[in-house]
Amino acid sequence: MKFEILTLFPEMFEGVLGSSILNKAQERDLINVDTINIRDYATDKHKQADDYPYGGGAGMVMKPEPIFRAIEDLSIGENVPVIFLTPQGKTFNQKMAKDFAKKERLVLLCGHYEGVDQRVRDELVTHEVSIGDFVLTGGELPAMILVDAISRMVSGVLGSDESYIEDSFYHGILDYPQYTRPQEFRGLEVPSILLSGNHAKIARWRRKEALKKTLVRRADLLEEVKLSLEDQEILTEIKEELKKEG
Amino acid sequence: MKFEILTLFPEMFEGVLGSSILNKAQERDLINVDTINIRDYATDKHKQADDYPYGGGAGMVMKPEPIFRAIEDLSIGENVPVIFLTPQGKTFNQKMAKDFAKKERLVLLCGHYEGVDQRVRDELVTHEVSIGDFVLTGGELPAMILVDAISRMVSGVLGSDESYIEDSFYHGILDYPQYTRPQEFRGLEVPSILLSGNHAKIARWRRKEALKKTLVRRADLLEEVKLSLEDQEILTEIKEELKKEG
Repeated sequence: MKFEILTLFPEMFEGVLGSSILNKAQERDLINVDTINIRDYATDKHKQADDYPYGGGAGMVMKPEPIFRAIEDLSIGENVPVIFLTPQGKTFNQKMAKDFAKKERLVLLCGHYEGVDQRVRDELVTHEVSIGDFVLTGGELPAMILVDAISRMVSGVLGSDESYIEDSFYHGILDYPQYTRPQEFRGLEVPSILLSGNHAKIARWRRKEALKKTLVRRADLLEEVKLSLEDQEILTEIKEELKKEG
Repeated sequence: MKFEILTLFPEMFEGVLGSSILNKAQERDLINVDTINIRDYATDKHKQADDYPYGGGAGMVMKPEPIFRAIEDLSIGENVPVIFLTPQGKTFNQKMAKDFAKKERLVLLCGHYEGVDQRVRDELVTHEVSIGDFVLTGGELPAMILVDAISRMVSGVLGSDESYIEDSFYHGILDYPQYTRPQEFRGLEVPSILLSGNHAKIARWRRKEALKKTLVRRADLLEEVKLSLEDQEILTEIKEELKKEG
């Protein structure tokens, strides 16, 4: 999987790409991440990549030529998504990460300032993606989010296939609580069931805690997920318990 | 505004904190960002910050002691939010950014691996925040997102007070299209109204484009935003036009 990131701030990516799972995945050639400085494709002597907006208003707008030239220089085919990170886009989620992970190559375009010239969006961009309803300085952090979330879905990147199967959102519901040593910490004990060695009971307890947290915090997720018959039984149980607790 | 970020990967933050608006805001002492390595607070000789989960399962869980010790070392008072970044949390949005920007100090805790010991969440964490419905390697990128979005709302960080007033989500709707020079690029023209010099007409055109994009892409946002009488007129106009276009 090859990521090509067009940005005015390639230095922002170094710390993130050099760490943890992303670093290992690059060393093992499972993913490849190039950052391309849009300014290198500016045509004037000042390497200007932005200019004032037509019609007035605060801020600067990224010029069309450097971005057109940078993307053309990648010689991508028709089937390579060109993703523009913008709060105007479709909200990124795990399903999108899974779909993008099937591609061999992705181009990510990071906006900055007040945005990019609309002609770039009309002519070059194939997908507009937002990571949420908040305002950021640029598309760089959202691009890193996409690289991380998508890379995790690329075969071989995670240590074992299990590691992401248990992640929340892979199965569409929230996680159960996790505990590690010490068994007692400042008077706070690990739930005894986790020490019981009874795997079936532990699995059921965890599923119940996960479903309960999802019901209380994100009931919307339960509408979209396929629940087993046992899940539905557990949910009925939880609802009765919550009723009793008032 | 002081951010204190607890993480196992402080080196991930360097590129992002050293760039653009966040760098300038730190140089001008408007914000202050400290990264604290949780591993420095591990008590054993191997500086172990994670351990196997009780009850079995894949992955590692972050141990409670180093995090308790690291947070206690900050000597924060009762009113300082301790924010845990997790997909289980409340989804971050611009309103939350604005509210957090009123605080003088924020502690951000970045989880990693399969999560942190539940006792940390029960005893220390005051807010659980998610940036979206997708799985990431750790809380580091979400923490950077919060630092960026919140810092932008701190007085003085942006060049002029105007710069964020026109941002999408500050007013709760999407942005209008932006154009800059050249006026004609590969046969693609800037809309002539933007060259007209008629500021009232330009403002109305932009508002209409913004409302149209919001209606088509994110109608949910229109339900939450206060629309002026003129906005409502424009929306009626847009709906009629869309009807005609089929």
